[in-house]
Amino acid sequence: MRQEFTGQGAARGSALGRARVRLPHVLEVAEERIPAEAIEDELERLHRAIATVREEMHGLRDRLHGALAQEVGEFLDLHALLLDDPELLSGLDELIRTGRYSADYALRLQRDRIAGVFASMDDAYFRSRVEDIDQVIGRIHAALHRRHADMQGVAGEILVTDNVAPAEIAQLQAQGVMAIVTSGGSTLSHSAILARSLHLPLVVGAAHVLQKVNDGDVLVVDGAGGLVVVEPNAADLRAHRARVRDLARERKQLNRLRREPSRTIDGVDIRLYANAESRDDVAEAHALGAAGIGLYRTEFLFLQRNEVPDEDEQFRTYRDVVLGMTGRTVTIRTLDLGADKADRTGLVLRDEPNPALGLRGVRLSLARPGLLDDQLRALLRASGYGPLRILVPMISSREEIRAVRTRMNRLAAELRAEGHEIADHIPLGAMIEVPAAAIALPGFIADLDFLSIGTNDLVQYVLAVDRNNEALGEMYSPLHPAVVRLIRDVIRLAQRKGKPVAVCGEIAGDARFVPMLLAMGLTELSLHPVTLLEVRRTIRACDLQALKARAPSLLKARGRLEIERWMAAAAPDLAR
Amino acid sequence: MRQEFTGQGAARGSALGRARVRLPHVLEVAEERIPAEAIEDELERLHRAIATVREEMHGLRDRLHGALAQEVGEFLDLHALLLDDPELLSGLDELIRTGRYSADYALRLQRDRIAGVFASMDDAYFRSRVEDIDQVIGRIHAALHRRHADMQGVAGEILVTDNVAPAEIAQLQAQGVMAIVTSGGSTLSHSAILARSLHLPLVVGAAHVLQKVNDGDVLVVDGAGGLVVVEPNAADLRAHRARVRDLARERKQLNRLRREPSRTIDGVDIRLYANAESRDDVAEAHALGAAGIGLYRTEFLFLQRNEVPDEDEQFRTYRDVVLGMTGRTVTIRTLDLGADKADRTGLVLRDEPNPALGLRGVRLSLARPGLLDDQLRALLRASGYGPLRILVPMISSREEIRAVRTRMNRLAAELRAEGHEIADHIPLGAMIEVPAAAIALPGFIADLDFLSIGTNDLVQYVLAVDRNNEALGEMYSPLHPAVVRLIRDVIRLAQRKGKPVAVCGEIAGDARFVPMLLAMGLTELSLHPVTLLEVRRTIRACDLQALKARAPSLLKARGRLEIERWMAAAAPDLAR
Repeated sequence: MRQEFTGQGAARGSALGRARVRLPHVLEVAEERIPAEAIEDELERLHRAIATVREEMHGLRDRLHGALAQEVGEFLDLHALLLDDPELLSGLDELIRTGRYSADYALRLQRDRIAGVFASMDDAYFRSRVEDIDQVIGRIHAALHRRHADMQGVAGEILVTDNVAPAEIAQLQAQGVMAIVTSGGSTLSHSAILARSLHLPLVVGAAHVLQKVNDGDVLVVDGAGGLVVVEPNAADLRAHRARVRDLARERKQLNRLRREPSRTIDGVDIRLYANAESRDDVAEAHALGAAGIGLYRTEFLFLQRNEVPDEDEQFRTYRDVVLGMTGRTVTIRTLDLGADKADRTGLVLRDEPNPALGLRGVRLSLARPGLLDDQLRALLRASGYGPLRILVPMISSREEIRAVRTRMNRLAAELRAEGHEIADHIPLGAMIEVPAAAIALPGFIADLDFLSIGTNDLVQYVLAVDRNNEALGEMYSPLHPAVVRLIRDVIRLAQRKGKPVAVCGEIAGDARFVPMLLAMGLTELSLHPVTLLEVRRTIRACDLQALKARAPSLLKARGRLEIERWMAAAAPDLAR
Repeated sequence: MRQEFTGQGAARGSALGRARVRLPHVLEVAEERIPAEAIEDELERLHRAIATVREEMHGLRDRLHGALAQEVGEFLDLHALLLDDPELLSGLDELIRTGRYSADYALRLQRDRIAGVFASMDDAYFRSRVEDIDQVIGRIHAALHRRHADMQGVAGEILVTDNVAPAEIAQLQAQGVMAIVTSGGSTLSHSAILARSLHLPLVVGAAHVLQKVNDGDVLVVDGAGGLVVVEPNAADLRAHRARVRDLARERKQLNRLRREPSRTIDGVDIRLYANAESRDDVAEAHALGAAGIGLYRTEFLFLQRNEVPDEDEQFRTYRDVVLGMTGRTVTIRTLDLGADKADRTGLVLRDEPNPALGLRGVRLSLARPGLLDDQLRALLRASGYGPLRILVPMISSREEIRAVRTRMNRLAAELRAEGHEIADHIPLGAMIEVPAAAIALPGFIADLDFLSIGTNDLVQYVLAVDRNNEALGEMYSPLHPAVVRLIRDVIRLAQRKGKPVAVCGEIAGDARFVPMLLAMGLTELSLHPVTLLEVRRTIRACDLQALKARAPSLLKARGRLEIERWMAAAAPDLAR
């Protein structure tokens, strides 16, 4: 019998398939002893499962790209650390060897032991670590039973579950899941962002689906409208096919834009740069006709390894990016590590109470000048191979950018003396992401060759809202009058002083924000390649003069609602 | 033989006394078993020691006042939680009872056990928790040996040690210590701030004192100059007496200012309000001739207890503050709790990765409307007893202040209908401490009856620098052009719109910043009573017109150095 459930559309796309229901994971294992002669087999079984999980996590890490890699990567990195924890592993072996417990029960005992210690500490931080341990142990447990496990062979199916972790999304897509429906979750979660970027239809907050949908039920899922239909009728199937057709047509139209300019209706060219952090990103950016790389992140060189990369390794990486863009400008950002990243090199303080307000970005670089010098030397050497700009994160004062420039100039002189070929002029720019930099910009814009507005952090600091804190709901939003005003002031000052200025936060890659940014006078954006064509399509539908005429009313907006109304009124007609 | 050591002067004052050297604490206890018949005595000895530590910490908590209470209180609260941890306590009893260990050795075993679990977690957060556990266990251990312990009978002595925790400072002063000299530490630490407010001379960073000074050596300490003299000669003693005389004269002069107006040379009255969070603060504020209470913190009602105070309890507290100020205006701030505060009521999320950017202040109040309503009703009822203003923390948008005002108006109507006497008009104001509020102020100043600039948080967010993160050294500073510009803009706009505006952060209580604030046009400050007379003295030495004439050069400053130069040039001559 046909049934309908509505949730919120979190990632668009339409899917038709059989339901695979996954009930909330509970590790309830009864005590189970094994005979002495089975011990070695049981140990091997456990170790194989752990190796499987380790590989899965590595594989996941490699499949993640761009800005998402950073965020999801953090979960994975933490779990990888836990998985390699010698105490955890030797404790398990011990339980199997001397306690003669089954691997399953050993997992549970070990889990309870660690959780008991943490829970007794009466501190929610520890309790939240227990969740991470549960997830890791749950993964091992699932791997132990992989042969008859749930999540194998889900290709073509629609997963119905309570919630889905960001780290799972990529894995499920790789396994061929067609769509995901969750009873909990939010359209703003990391999982939702990831699903959107992977074009995996996702409906969240569909209450009661877990009770009402059974394994094997046929479902139609509309990820845009948030609709889930069980046992669809002819009309549902027709609607589904229409949605699939529309999406395919849209993709095709988008693909035609690969060789088109990013030019407004009234003939103004907008420069679309790409954000990148891998060779694939660079190749993709080139193929999409990006104006260059606007933000190449270097953190990945330092994460997931035990030692800091030396000058030569960095040089080869940066040089290859420059070569990969065949003469288009490449902007490489110096190291932007902080205590919120799980690194193993020991570069970063790990016990900061507020890592977002801590020793990160240029602060870390200036506190470790040897590190900064290696990176600057590598960057300077790469500048001999094509146009390269150096971008410095977390600048909050004139003193900091001057300190970097002084080092850069000295190192350039040294490198030339050593016989290296380096560019005559290497533009040095700053991320404008700390409010102080935006507000005090008139006092130090003369020290910058170019600017890149990092809206993700800027919004976070201006609003004093941690963007990853789900308890704050929709408070994290670029649609605040203070954010609009600050971005506009930075753009205007930069243009008056003749300095190139781009926006490189997530809003640059979200076509909905394009009219607002153009109205503020922006002519350069840097965004992940995945949405470059969508943004180009929107630009091509915008009339710049008309948008600029609307700018005063945008700047007069006194609240979020007024800005949303402005955006709705300014949105171009993409169908024309 | 006379010897001299120089460190940095962290809290001024001059002291003469014998040295008490405390070497870094190491809990090295050899294994020690006790006979079965001694078990009960040993348990009692341990429990007595724990009770002593618990009392000490409570006593300390009560002696702390004002802004410092908040910061130092956090350490104490965490330690109190650890001390009450049932696992820790039952583990100790168990070790003594079944292991027949001495209390000392049981402490060590239990410490090593917990530390072992944490250390194995490969995460610096856990490692830093080990330090807290060490401190708590160290305190118990010290209490076990209190009879022949070091720190009793230190009255009249000068403590020489490696470092001193904020929580110890108040204790040491209460025990009669004359001064403290440390080989480590910084003039910016919480310990230094606390020592200054308690007028306890402190010299930090005096290298080698631990190796060179012996117990019983006679010392002269100059807490302003950072000088430590061992076995002083006649000239040293003369200099010490001169410093003591000068300080006494200064205190006397200051005390004469109790009944004087806070009026500049050119005859402008500046309103000095007091920050307060206890009856003592209120009485002190009244006695010093404060214009009123500019910031009454209500967090203390919610901390250190297991349930939320009800409307009646809150009402009585607020009413007594109003009555205590005999008709002068009292400004009470609604709850400003966040995840960085150790509360036991369960109001606050405890596992936020960046509590400073989390669910705090008005965000928490609006998320828990029942809580906000109780507080608003209590405040409204107190308004029947004298002039009262309501101040809302962490406002970042027009929507938030409007939500509070709507509730307030509805509750006021209800209370009047219930027959309560409440004021006709209760001014509702906002803390301006989130950058968004300062930047977007033109769009919502009409919704505010008054403003209070909270510079502590404002600086933190504008610079993206956690003020409690010592790894960032001197980065946390109000002397940044962006901070100056933002504060000036807020003051100017408020005055143009005829809204009272005060500054209530720590800079308001630091006489060095007074000329800068007056130059920006500020005429209201709110500060802890402890420095009120010093600030009044400085105001009385300032020429407001001359300062305002200097304002343009302050606003043109492009860096911290230029602002420091401005402050040096604008500093009034206090000797006149």
